[in-house]
Amino acid sequence: MFRGGVIVAPASALGGAIAVIRMSGEGSIACCDALFRGRKPLAEAASHTIHYGNIVDGDNIVDDVVVALFRAPHSYTGEESVEISIHGSRYIATRVIDLLCRQGARVAEPGEFSARAFAAGRIDLSQAEAVADIIAADSQAAHTLAATQMRGGYSETLNNLRDSLIELTALLELELDFAEEDVEFADRTRLRDMLRKTMDVVRDLKESFRTGNAIRNGVCVAIIGAPNVGKSTLLNRLVGDDRAMVSDIAGTTRDTIEESVVIGGIRFRFVDTAGIRTTEDKLEQMGIERTLKAVSKAQIIINMCEPNGNFEPITINENQLEIRVVNKADTISKEEIADALYISARENIGIDALRTALANTIDTTNLYRGEAVVSNVRHYEALEAAYSALTAAESALANNISSELLAEDIRTAIHHIGEITGGTISSDTILHRIFSSFCIGK
Amino acid sequence: MFRGGVIVAPASALGGAIAVIRMSGEGSIACCDALFRGRKPLAEAASHTIHYGNIVDGDNIVDDVVVALFRAPHSYTGEESVEISIHGSRYIATRVIDLLCRQGARVAEPGEFSARAFAAGRIDLSQAEAVADIIAADSQAAHTLAATQMRGGYSETLNNLRDSLIELTALLELELDFAEEDVEFADRTRLRDMLRKTMDVVRDLKESFRTGNAIRNGVCVAIIGAPNVGKSTLLNRLVGDDRAMVSDIAGTTRDTIEESVVIGGIRFRFVDTAGIRTTEDKLEQMGIERTLKAVSKAQIIINMCEPNGNFEPITINENQLEIRVVNKADTISKEEIADALYISARENIGIDALRTALANTIDTTNLYRGEAVVSNVRHYEALEAAYSALTAAESALANNISSELLAEDIRTAIHHIGEITGGTISSDTILHRIFSSFCIGK
Repeated sequence: MFRGGVIVAPASALGGAIAVIRMSGEGSIACCDALFRGRKPLAEAASHTIHYGNIVDGDNIVDDVVVALFRAPHSYTGEESVEISIHGSRYIATRVIDLLCRQGARVAEPGEFSARAFAAGRIDLSQAEAVADIIAADSQAAHTLAATQMRGGYSETLNNLRDSLIELTALLELELDFAEEDVEFADRTRLRDMLRKTMDVVRDLKESFRTGNAIRNGVCVAIIGAPNVGKSTLLNRLVGDDRAMVSDIAGTTRDTIEESVVIGGIRFRFVDTAGIRTTEDKLEQMGIERTLKAVSKAQIIINMCEPNGNFEPITINENQLEIRVVNKADTISKEEIADALYISARENIGIDALRTALANTIDTTNLYRGEAVVSNVRHYEALEAAYSALTAAESALANNISSELLAEDIRTAIHHIGEITGGTISSDTILHRIFSSFCIGK
Repeated sequence: MFRGGVIVAPASALGGAIAVIRMSGEGSIACCDALFRGRKPLAEAASHTIHYGNIVDGDNIVDDVVVALFRAPHSYTGEESVEISIHGSRYIATRVIDLLCRQGARVAEPGEFSARAFAAGRIDLSQAEAVADIIAADSQAAHTLAATQMRGGYSETLNNLRDSLIELTALLELELDFAEEDVEFADRTRLRDMLRKTMDVVRDLKESFRTGNAIRNGVCVAIIGAPNVGKSTLLNRLVGDDRAMVSDIAGTTRDTIEESVVIGGIRFRFVDTAGIRTTEDKLEQMGIERTLKAVSKAQIIINMCEPNGNFEPITINENQLEIRVVNKADTISKEEIADALYISARENIGIDALRTALANTIDTTNLYRGEAVVSNVRHYEALEAAYSALTAAESALANNISSELLAEDIRTAIHHIGEITGGTISSDTILHRIFSSFCIGK
């Protein structure tokens, strides 16, 4: 992962008016200079300056470019870096990168720019991971989540946690040093209090994953109900209104895999479902099985019926939430079911209340307060491991197990917390796995 | 089209590690400054410098950005300009643009940046149009074509042409001033020579359109022949080899509408054809009709048969070229048809010769010599109009029509030549039509 040399890759997507080619590593400026014809050589220019000129291939001008220089350590990677703004064609990007490679640069591995920033100690691992998340973020909540993590708010929480645990082990180790004298330096009650407080923080972080994951990946919603109850009309109502609000910048496209809508800053993703009912028809049975599978994966199930109909009889699990909705409420005079929302998808009645109900399923108070919210499975697993080590420590403490074993449990917890920011990861393989999931140029 | 104010738009495509938001117009720096938190205000910074900081919305940090400043007149548009490098998400781009608009900027119309560069006299119309072409260029020839035009090589040819014509009218007008004295200042023989030389240049330019258009849009090739003659095998052979050579940069995608391949720096686009034969089958007849239609549109027809078979009996028009190919040449010992290429698509025999034959259909000598090659229909039409005015002038000269009418014809030609670079276009409507075909941010 941490090979040296000058690396190069497109940093922006291609196809716009301009595209940016990014280089990093000692020698980047000299490498670019070999192809650059401007007013003066880049070698003579100061950091953080911009230079207009041409990229040439012998006597041929490949493109008119604007080159930005970043001298070490004042760049994203901490290394000497160059950003070349070219006209945004794939052809030019390929040629410029090819020419730079002939001057000794090599095409960067996915995530290699961020890996270098990490290696230089400019960002920790969770911040590097947040860079990928911030680019993918497509709602206010997902953006806030990634931005907080990228700017190190999350790392600070983890570092404080780690400091508390190190303080704990320090007390225990001091005790061990004087073990033969049978002195109990660390007051056991105080130790237990400290341990419990730390466990509370870890548990809160762990539990924030449900929210964080929903925010990061969107909340999966299944709308179920008998045929013709109005599922599609409701979906169009929810999605259609949002579509009109989406600020559309020409020349950009958005890939939509399924219908989705941002409500209250959170993305909700709707899965298509066929009606559920008992049937002899093989084909229809298959459709229903698919529906049931989709429903089992959904976090929210909107169970829909008509005023005189029945709700689908479903069983939800502990991670799911059912919102009962009576549609076509404009056709009746009295609302009879207490725990259901009365709406009319066609007449746009009660839709705002349903939106509010959906938005309220995710508690974003902590998020917008700037508190750490876990959204990455790798982090969640590390927290789980840390928590289980701390549970072992707690039980050791309660059972008066030796300080040595207690300290060992706490050190295990420290190790797992450290994995999140990368402080205790020494394996190149793990780092490679993390960074290689990044896109190139990052 | 030429409204004032600060304009803003994404200049790069979105979705990469970074994206660039571009602003132009007096007040751009102040507008950005209102949202920027860095070491010092941008207002105090020099042109062509880069500044790291945050874009904020009140107390909230929207993104960590790098801002590049261009003070007037040293920018693409000639106006004060700012380029903001953000993380490449659509969400951030939309928010930053929205915030800038609240500070008084407005979203740019498509092509508005280039329109401003044109209005400021920094580029002419043909150069502005070349910017769009250079971004779309996906072969060496198409890139060279657009690059020559963008850098003004083409404009220079046109300006020289215009100067010659202006010299001609000057001579004629001098004569008119002394008309009463019946003096013939302009030697008629010299006038005719000058006119003919100019007409030669216009004709060459006009004729270069065939090449230019093929280079810009790709050369359309139809492979025809009886079923099982090996059309698909040949297509796969031609396209497949290229595919393997295409330098693939992860994270970028290429839209392919049809199979195409770059040979000798030129893009060839292949249309799928069904075999042509007499049949009673209605469905097959429809397929054959489609084939004939595709063939009528192709610039090159590869007519393919087996060693003992017959070529398809086709009639080609003056703009078409037929290349006869005998496939499965590995199964015979003697080449019997003089004007056909003997190949084996399966055994990869004779494919290079076919490639050379395809590449040779387009004469790129002038292109790579840096000479003007016309590739834009608008330019071609202007040249046609100019040529017809010059033809009228030539006939007036031959028939001793008055200098006044002769001068009028030449002025018409000057007007049409001027339309290409925009020198004689005063209509806002025409300019709007040209620039609005650009993508946004250009």
